[in-house]
Amino acid sequence: MTAFPTPAAFLAALRGLPQPDAAARSAAVARQAELTKPPGSLGRLEDIAVFMAGWQGNPLPRLDRGSAVVFAGNHGIVARGVSAFPASVTAQMVANFEAGGAAINALSRAAGLDLKIVSLDLDRPTADFTQAPAMSEDECLAAINAGAAAVVDAPNLIVLGEMGIGNTTSAAALCLASFGGSARDWVGPGTGVDSDGIARKIAVVEAGFALHRDALTTPFEILRRLGGRELAAIAGAVVAARLAGVPVMLDGFICCAAIAPLAAACPDIVAHCLAGHVSAEPGHAALLARIELDPLLSMGMRLGEASGAATATLLVRAALAAHAEMATFAEAGVSAA
Amino acid sequence: MTAFPTPAAFLAALRGLPQPDAAARSAAVARQAELTKPPGSLGRLEDIAVFMAGWQGNPLPRLDRGSAVVFAGNHGIVARGVSAFPASVTAQMVANFEAGGAAINALSRAAGLDLKIVSLDLDRPTADFTQAPAMSEDECLAAINAGAAAVVDAPNLIVLGEMGIGNTTSAAALCLASFGGSARDWVGPGTGVDSDGIARKIAVVEAGFALHRDALTTPFEILRRLGGRELAAIAGAVVAARLAGVPVMLDGFICCAAIAPLAAACPDIVAHCLAGHVSAEPGHAALLARIELDPLLSMGMRLGEASGAATATLLVRAALAAHAEMATFAEAGVSAA
Repeated sequence: MTAFPTPAAFLAALRGLPQPDAAARSAAVARQAELTKPPGSLGRLEDIAVFMAGWQGNPLPRLDRGSAVVFAGNHGIVARGVSAFPASVTAQMVANFEAGGAAINALSRAAGLDLKIVSLDLDRPTADFTQAPAMSEDECLAAINAGAAAVVDAPNLIVLGEMGIGNTTSAAALCLASFGGSARDWVGPGTGVDSDGIARKIAVVEAGFALHRDALTTPFEILRRLGGRELAAIAGAVVAARLAGVPVMLDGFICCAAIAPLAAACPDIVAHCLAGHVSAEPGHAALLARIELDPLLSMGMRLGEASGAATATLLVRAALAAHAEMATFAEAGVSAA
Repeated sequence: MTAFPTPAAFLAALRGLPQPDAAARSAAVARQAELTKPPGSLGRLEDIAVFMAGWQGNPLPRLDRGSAVVFAGNHGIVARGVSAFPASVTAQMVANFEAGGAAINALSRAAGLDLKIVSLDLDRPTADFTQAPAMSEDECLAAINAGAAAVVDAPNLIVLGEMGIGNTTSAAALCLASFGGSARDWVGPGTGVDSDGIARKIAVVEAGFALHRDALTTPFEILRRLGGRELAAIAGAVVAARLAGVPVMLDGFICCAAIAPLAAACPDIVAHCLAGHVSAEPGHAALLARIELDPLLSMGMRLGEASGAATATLLVRAALAAHAEMATFAEAGVSAA
């Protein structure tokens, strides 16, 4: 099944996004008011339960089929010295994911998530976007559809993440193209480059933006020219999840940057998304503010691979447990205020 | 077993607090540096793993015997209109805890914690502290020892919380006596009183502080004169946990206020404690700053009964899972930076 046969079909989906189930939301709000606690005293745990109810269309939302998906891709701009790690580490880390030894393996087990790794042509890096579009139309569309295809088996939450040496630079370019400012606003140390590395990243983002500036007319073109396969896949997965009524847990800077082009054109695209955390990458807090998502965690994490999102999923578990399992004032014989 | 036979013995414990196991901490730090991720990229999850290693004396700390304890007590000051709920709700909520229907039941199940409820003479409220000390010496010491006695069976983490209608007012009085400022700085809406209720709470705190001011010479006297049984019990549990080498997860404003008198006299008392969250109660952020604890969560929770601490324990689970289960660079054949 191809979710989006053409770039135009992908963009058209943004103009007809489904909304949450109002009746399920209302029922969840009413239930929260009857549980044995002062109204509102569970704070964001209450909001999460109501959010999940709305998107699942179920007043008692569940998390027994949680899915974590990590998309991996390689980037031509790595040749320009934008990362502390060589490009070969992308494939090495994918092997580590498949062997069960990475952070996301431990964290998705801890969070009760089924983990899926989607490698996207690691032996064919994107083009260096300072010289040419990162991807052809067909390549970008294929990556978007690979993302959409990962939304399968009706998960009750999908947790998205990425692995791709060099992709904080692509992410910064997507943010610049989507929300403006300067390259310096969106570039940070990533996995740990020094100030010279940051200067190189800024120069690469500026050069890419200058080359493509006049062609960045749609979210698809921004993703295609400045993004990468794993970033386009995340964008495709977020739109496909929305169409399927599946709530999404986003990870850090790169994951959020992948939907920045969509959110700039259509702010409502984040309505079915939770931001798992705000990462240590400096651009992330600014990006979350622009896409109007309030992160659940602020733990100084900056690993990617869905690690922050998987950790934050534990808070969804807590929220749903309280929502489903607590007694009402009437059931417990407790006096309400 | 009585942990503290006299008030002096309780206070003496503060002068000989054990420290974490340096070798286990160092081994945990070294392991974190070898795991397949950029150094430091798991942020506070790394810090939590190292903290737990030090206090458990184990480079691979565990959380298979996590204990949550909720102490409950009643307060004479409730007669002064300081709560939105009647005092009878304390016992009703204890019955709800015992029947399994409260938030802490659901959240401690979600976090894999064994839950214990310790009711402290609910039919004998403390005295109204605007008129007399809240407790006699014997009563306060008994409550401290009831707290200490809850630290049993060598848990690898103890999660502390409270239930007691009226106890945000006692908590504010403890903060004022411990750290100064004005009553207004420490009083908030609690379970949800209006501005008249807040004014009554401020007046009660001011009257209590004025009555006892000259006698607030030790942490014991502050707890005894302005506290409550569940607050003294938390203080006793925190000291006993330290002596037993058991790390502690603190809950919200009231739980932290219970150790404010100890922390003002001996700041190191919080070294084995994590702050689970910063609550919506306005005094909590200021109190955390004074006791120098950085909360793990900020979710707008304000329920008490260890709900925020139990939720935050999920982050400890995530931290320990990553620490124990991830492969090293050498094991995974991944190139380090």
